[in-house]
Amino acid sequence: MNQQATEKVYASIITIGDELLIGQVVDTNSAWIAQELNKIGVLVKRRVSVGDVHADIVQALDAERKESKIILLTGGLGPTADDITKPLLCNYFGGKMIVHEPTLAHVKNIFENILKRPLIERNLKQAEVPDVCTVVMNERGTAPGMWFEKEDCVFMSMPGVPHEMKGMMTNEVLPKIAKQFTLPHIIHKTLLVAGIGESFLAEQIKNWEEVLPAEIKLAYLPNYGMVRLRLSAIGFDKDALQKTVDEEFTKLKLLVKDNLVVDDDVPMDKVVLNLLLDKKKTVATAESCTGGYVAHLLTSNAGSSAIFNGSVVAYDYPAKENLLGVSHATLSKDGAVSESTVTQMVTGALAALKTDYAVATSGIMGPGGGMTEKPVGTVWIAVGNNDKTVAKKFHFRFDRKRNIELTANAALNMLREFVIGS
Amino acid sequence: MNQQATEKVYASIITIGDELLIGQVVDTNSAWIAQELNKIGVLVKRRVSVGDVHADIVQALDAERKESKIILLTGGLGPTADDITKPLLCNYFGGKMIVHEPTLAHVKNIFENILKRPLIERNLKQAEVPDVCTVVMNERGTAPGMWFEKEDCVFMSMPGVPHEMKGMMTNEVLPKIAKQFTLPHIIHKTLLVAGIGESFLAEQIKNWEEVLPAEIKLAYLPNYGMVRLRLSAIGFDKDALQKTVDEEFTKLKLLVKDNLVVDDDVPMDKVVLNLLLDKKKTVATAESCTGGYVAHLLTSNAGSSAIFNGSVVAYDYPAKENLLGVSHATLSKDGAVSESTVTQMVTGALAALKTDYAVATSGIMGPGGGMTEKPVGTVWIAVGNNDKTVAKKFHFRFDRKRNIELTANAALNMLREFVIGS
Repeated sequence: MNQQATEKVYASIITIGDELLIGQVVDTNSAWIAQELNKIGVLVKRRVSVGDVHADIVQALDAERKESKIILLTGGLGPTADDITKPLLCNYFGGKMIVHEPTLAHVKNIFENILKRPLIERNLKQAEVPDVCTVVMNERGTAPGMWFEKEDCVFMSMPGVPHEMKGMMTNEVLPKIAKQFTLPHIIHKTLLVAGIGESFLAEQIKNWEEVLPAEIKLAYLPNYGMVRLRLSAIGFDKDALQKTVDEEFTKLKLLVKDNLVVDDDVPMDKVVLNLLLDKKKTVATAESCTGGYVAHLLTSNAGSSAIFNGSVVAYDYPAKENLLGVSHATLSKDGAVSESTVTQMVTGALAALKTDYAVATSGIMGPGGGMTEKPVGTVWIAVGNNDKTVAKKFHFRFDRKRNIELTANAALNMLREFVIGS
Repeated sequence: MNQQATEKVYASIITIGDELLIGQVVDTNSAWIAQELNKIGVLVKRRVSVGDVHADIVQALDAERKESKIILLTGGLGPTADDITKPLLCNYFGGKMIVHEPTLAHVKNIFENILKRPLIERNLKQAEVPDVCTVVMNERGTAPGMWFEKEDCVFMSMPGVPHEMKGMMTNEVLPKIAKQFTLPHIIHKTLLVAGIGESFLAEQIKNWEEVLPAEIKLAYLPNYGMVRLRLSAIGFDKDALQKTVDEEFTKLKLLVKDNLVVDDDVPMDKVVLNLLLDKKKTVATAESCTGGYVAHLLTSNAGSSAIFNGSVVAYDYPAKENLLGVSHATLSKDGAVSESTVTQMVTGALAALKTDYAVATSGIMGPGGGMTEKPVGTVWIAVGNNDKTVAKKFHFRFDRKRNIELTANAALNMLREFVIGS
């Protein structure tokens, strides 16, 4: 950025592929790209997905050029016959195909030294690019990225494979955009609240929201029984903008303090990880209905080995008895979905894994397994340490996948509250 | 459908919300909607995401009307101030807002009997709808759906909360579309192959692909070291279309038989579940680096309790020793990421959980923890029963999340091959 930014810079994201239009894959690239663009001050105007259809891709390029100065494309660059994007772009920008020698060397190197497979004609084709583009090397794959410019718009075509696209964006594309455009500042601040509905929350902060400065927008993002509140601001005077956002965020935190989980945009599992790291404590999970998902959430974060020793996933009765010491009598009398069972699961996990805390889940996730007195969605969760254990019953009422997510998040929140209070 | 379909019917999906443009949430609604539309014979032409901005929403409506006869919108209907879609639609279709009595009764019922919270003015607002729409009841939430018609296009506005949208689509919207339009037949058939690269696969099936009938399209969908191949066909003579697709699919299966995992569009975890259900066998997992993710994948499927007893997630050395009986000497000498450790983990899991099979993982997922002789991405996986155990070393080279996914899929594939061969 070599001069003061004075106007907003917009980008459009075009994702290409029939698989997006028949719903066979979920488009995660767009969300990631949007996040990264925002960080450097670029606003996303629109996201468009089109199929592997020549006319539709051309139409999308024509339409987005009218909206945005930056057009990012993913998909349609692989070695196989359903990929039509590269010749299309060559034609769109009036070029002809040539062999790009550094890409050719790179593709050969990948096949010879990494994949250790013979290189075939089809792979060599990947080194061909339009002579009117700047090639962006793909360190993580064989399809090169292509940067085009036309009438003060830039167009960047990238492969659809997420980790290849991400490497290219981080190492090359974002720095190139930041250099070429004078960008404003975008600030987002997000907090997470639990235990209050969206409409009540809105009432609670109404008076504050009504007098929010015009450059700040508030959004409600409900998710798994919790709500994230996000402040967004865009402006050209970085310090003044930051100051205004910080002031409003402080007021908001005070208004929601009784339900505040964290004043940052981090998921619940990361909140719990950070809390335990901070307190230098360890946790184990004893999971029935969540089937290892709570352990997975915790261990999906780098650094989790400092707070996590292990887990027992105890799906059937013998596993609960043998690995967690739940008494046979309890299971016979109260059943697996009961306060007594989850309480004993906590005790068993603390003993088996020698941790400071343990959290246990047992419930009926559906679609089968419901009973009159314990319908699908009935869940018991317990959390404890060597001094005490607390248990709580929940009623969820959704499908299996969502019930597992809700149970895991509720378990992590109970753990969080217990750790803070102990 | 009351007459023979003679032309393709296209739909556009418009998702609304600033959160989609800053990448705070991944749009999973579009993929689900596209899948369901396909099943009834509607092709998706485009997917567009726009922010909570009046002009951008109007522009998207205008643009998509030119492309498609069916426009489905999600998002922007909640009770809070950042939702602008409803008044916009009212204006766009030239109506005025009125109270919809059945929705009012429904909202009151939800608050009084389900949420057991007082109803506030903001919630009552949700019962207001444009007088020019047909209301589609939202059984799972408070925001009603709205069906509009204009110049032979239909427009359906739905809430962005996935399970509310899904209920509305399944119960009301899809049947309404099927009734109103004469639709062609769409057939997709997908198979999954493992252990062969995309370009080699393409060579292997080239001669067949070159003479595919024009009404059939082939797509390559690479994912986590595997490739899905999908045949798609659209036509008006259902029986003839089905016959052609079946014939080509049979030829394709034969061409890829050495690498074929399954001749259906199901994920690897479901393939393994079905295989074990079929053989009436059980499995346990002993997980270090995957941290419970393999167990989660298996238990995310309904019916998994018949094949899954439980798991031990053993992250630290003591957990591996105490719960799985890995010898202290082995851990000291070979380390946790070794053939001997994963082999003993299998033995330990078979004993602890009394299953027919067990699968074990141990590796370095990153970003930290790598060593010269065992860099990040080094993984050992073992699978076995009481007769024998096989172990295999892998080298992945990606980020933590992807390494966990790749390891879990490789473990499930090894389990699948072992079960088939034993």
